[in-house]
Amino acid sequence: MNSKPILIYDTTLRDGSQGEGVSFSLNDKLNIAIRLAEVGVDFIEGGYPLSNEKDVAFFQEIRKRDLGKTKVCAFGMTRRKSMKAADDPGMQALVAAQTPVITLVGKTWDYHATEVLRVTLDENVQMIGESAEFLAKHSEVIYDAEHFFDGFKANPEYAIETLKAAASAGATWMSLCDTNGGSLPEEIAAITEHTIQSLADHNVEIGIHCHNDSELAVANSLAAVDAGATQVQGTINGIGERCGNVDLISVIANLALKKKGYTVLGGNSLKHLTELSRFVYETANLQWRNGQAFVGQSAFAHKGGMHVHAINKAAKTYEHIDPEMVGNERRILVSELSGRSNIVAVAAEHNLQDDRELMDKILAEVVRLENKGYQFENATASFNLLIKRIAGTFTPHFHPIKYRIVAGDRNSEETTVFAEAIIKLKVGETLWFDAAEGNGPVNALDSALRKTLLGTYPCLSDMRLIDYKVRVVDSGAGTAASIRVNIESGDQDETWGTIGVSENIIEASWRALVDSVEYKLHKENQPAEGNVPVENATA
Amino acid sequence: MNSKPILIYDTTLRDGSQGEGVSFSLNDKLNIAIRLAEVGVDFIEGGYPLSNEKDVAFFQEIRKRDLGKTKVCAFGMTRRKSMKAADDPGMQALVAAQTPVITLVGKTWDYHATEVLRVTLDENVQMIGESAEFLAKHSEVIYDAEHFFDGFKANPEYAIETLKAAASAGATWMSLCDTNGGSLPEEIAAITEHTIQSLADHNVEIGIHCHNDSELAVANSLAAVDAGATQVQGTINGIGERCGNVDLISVIANLALKKKGYTVLGGNSLKHLTELSRFVYETANLQWRNGQAFVGQSAFAHKGGMHVHAINKAAKTYEHIDPEMVGNERRILVSELSGRSNIVAVAAEHNLQDDRELMDKILAEVVRLENKGYQFENATASFNLLIKRIAGTFTPHFHPIKYRIVAGDRNSEETTVFAEAIIKLKVGETLWFDAAEGNGPVNALDSALRKTLLGTYPCLSDMRLIDYKVRVVDSGAGTAASIRVNIESGDQDETWGTIGVSENIIEASWRALVDSVEYKLHKENQPAEGNVPVENATA
Repeated sequence: MNSKPILIYDTTLRDGSQGEGVSFSLNDKLNIAIRLAEVGVDFIEGGYPLSNEKDVAFFQEIRKRDLGKTKVCAFGMTRRKSMKAADDPGMQALVAAQTPVITLVGKTWDYHATEVLRVTLDENVQMIGESAEFLAKHSEVIYDAEHFFDGFKANPEYAIETLKAAASAGATWMSLCDTNGGSLPEEIAAITEHTIQSLADHNVEIGIHCHNDSELAVANSLAAVDAGATQVQGTINGIGERCGNVDLISVIANLALKKKGYTVLGGNSLKHLTELSRFVYETANLQWRNGQAFVGQSAFAHKGGMHVHAINKAAKTYEHIDPEMVGNERRILVSELSGRSNIVAVAAEHNLQDDRELMDKILAEVVRLENKGYQFENATASFNLLIKRIAGTFTPHFHPIKYRIVAGDRNSEETTVFAEAIIKLKVGETLWFDAAEGNGPVNALDSALRKTLLGTYPCLSDMRLIDYKVRVVDSGAGTAASIRVNIESGDQDETWGTIGVSENIIEASWRALVDSVEYKLHKENQPAEGNVPVENATA
Repeated sequence: MNSKPILIYDTTLRDGSQGEGVSFSLNDKLNIAIRLAEVGVDFIEGGYPLSNEKDVAFFQEIRKRDLGKTKVCAFGMTRRKSMKAADDPGMQALVAAQTPVITLVGKTWDYHATEVLRVTLDENVQMIGESAEFLAKHSEVIYDAEHFFDGFKANPEYAIETLKAAASAGATWMSLCDTNGGSLPEEIAAITEHTIQSLADHNVEIGIHCHNDSELAVANSLAAVDAGATQVQGTINGIGERCGNVDLISVIANLALKKKGYTVLGGNSLKHLTELSRFVYETANLQWRNGQAFVGQSAFAHKGGMHVHAINKAAKTYEHIDPEMVGNERRILVSELSGRSNIVAVAAEHNLQDDRELMDKILAEVVRLENKGYQFENATASFNLLIKRIAGTFTPHFHPIKYRIVAGDRNSEETTVFAEAIIKLKVGETLWFDAAEGNGPVNALDSALRKTLLGTYPCLSDMRLIDYKVRVVDSGAGTAASIRVNIESGDQDETWGTIGVSENIIEASWRALVDSVEYKLHKENQPAEGNVPVENATA
């Protein structure tokens, strides 16, 4: 049996940008579009050219790029009531976007036509037909039937009539939208099947556009594909209004790896899903969803001792797919629940796994620190140092004596914020005392620490801070609660995470900074008292 | 047609606690169990009495509580190989937990029996049968068939044989587990149906236990119910290992509000789902998942201008259910995409909606601040003050002149961390200068601010900080990036959110603190120069 191609239509840049806390710059949009084209997404909906300047600029810029087979779509609504399509500013903006595809959205649900648009049912049908006809002269037209499933449930004949108006006017795709996200898979399957039969005389293909309000968007999209839809609309990571659009990552992975008889994207695209997911999170400045299916940081993370034990024997025992198929990786977590198996897995890297007494000590210390708010799951560098400390193989490269930060606003005409740090360290027998300014107190502390050590350890020059995260551990007590700071650092070879916990955010940050620098110095095998003879040090 | 009752089995306290970053104290577990019983959950799996002291203590404590019809379950594995059930420490621990129900987990998948347990297929069947028989003398036994669906796909006869061993030995429920979360709804439906037919001679009912590794856990659970399962296992908010267990919130809401022919929980329980969800997040110290179906903060949040316009006409146009049915609420968000509709909705509270020029000014300022990293979605108090400022109705109750914080560690035998803040304010014509210590710099600043103002504005005494959150807005630049601080404050009547953004975490916190206090003073209608005559002020 031949595989049936299912086309992927991404609307991260348009419907996704409706998500709470999501805001893309023009450059963000261009970067995401280029990535989407690289993985072979078939359609990219770039924006709503009537709504803002940024989207207009996007369409101007994206025309200059070679996106291969990927088609860019401009999105807009049917013409306004009592106006010719050609005279409508929305229609004109869609044409002016000069995209190979225009996606036209119209009303399917009789209630929406009469109560929201305030037009007769007939005029709504005319608005759809005339808009599609006008746009089809310029580009391929995908017709998005808003509220299709709710509309069909309310008035099936009318819902089909609106589709026929678009199809007869030259639209080539009918995209059926579960706009409110409230439908069940069995409803999606039955209505999609009925719709395909009703449009048998029209030369159109069917798309599906689901939202996740009932946590069924992936199942609904797959149900529509099984019923005959050949295009799936959604967003990367499922970002979007309310509970989001369907997550295309899950749709693609399920179609490619689980369902039988379909092809999707092409080439090596699957292996780039994890990278694509994280790129979109970072660009949108959203936190990764650790538990995200297939690509989440926790998707192949193993914590329970029993599971870790089994994973070491055979990965498929607790993994539904090989994480590498989607570019993800297996992680063994450190936690009080994990028992000896996890500690052994990490300790094996230090060749310590046969020392039972040492393993017990490490486990006890992990439990003690976890009770204080530490979590080593994203702080493997701190965990590595912890193991070294307990094993007695840790050799400190410097001894913090004290630090102090001062921050405030200067009392001048225009308020100026400042932050300064002073630190005192000992390297070998030499005392160092230095200070630095920064944008904020943690940045000042970081600068002071590295400035002070750089002469002794020049390898610190290629180290940089990548991310800084703060979490209130017990949020019940407001600003007096414990603060957990995670710092991610990197050099040209790798990135590493460290952690600090304290009631004082400065102290928590300081601990994470010190660990980060120590980790770097350990991995570079720096001698504990520095590269510079002590007598040459200038304090 | 009579409705068929579907029982809800919660394993938040056991399988949920395997989730990354999840760690419950004994008290947490007791509090969650009591809440679960209050909403009428049928079974609560409390823990694994062999694994740790905390779970043993949980079963001792929970026995003293009246949980109504809710049954507590202790969870454990089949007896070890080459050992009598009665002699196995795991079996003994289960009996010692003295729970009305014991949940026994055993291996279904031939591969797991031979490769992980390292027993023959026959011995695995004996282990299941003998364990169930031993436990059934003490409690009702639910048999959890681990990897049931993967096991069935590999060797269907053997998978059914393991179930029959448990059923013949006295287990009353067969819970079919998609342990690796990799199955599709159509597979779950077909295998569940086949299993029910195969067990027709046994007096057992069927449960379903899904994981979300393919983002299909809700659809899979519903598919099993349609195929005849009458118990659904899962966790609140879907917390759990890897991608989590099925979210019982979505299962319950879909069964009660979407599917036909089933009853679930009872009474007014649905209305408590949002509260329950948030209680579990807070207790587990996890961040809320804003886009969570039904109960998320964004689940009924409307951002797009077009949508907000329609929502104002009729809620069902963009909402699949009435949010109140699950105890949630509608929110109108403020954002650059929202256009005039959203601003009008919020401004209407200030009776400003008819002033077009003012609306334009507010919109422009929101866009400007959003570009700097502000997000007013969780900072409605700051947004209210912003509107007042632009409308000219803001009357500052105090003028910050300067602040300074100092934090560091004292240079004594034992390291002591300290934080101090000094601030200078003007109230009316009076200058105030004061200082305070705190656990950290933000706490010190907060204390100093309120200490300084309390004499003038005694109403501040009933205000408290509830939560403090920090977000790096541009995480690419490490500690030099912009910092967004959100503070949630409250008094006996309400809670409110404020925001501050700066490269300096102290400055960002200061702005959010100042807004929080100003909001409180505005809502209490405090006179701008305080309640105390200026001449009585002591600086």
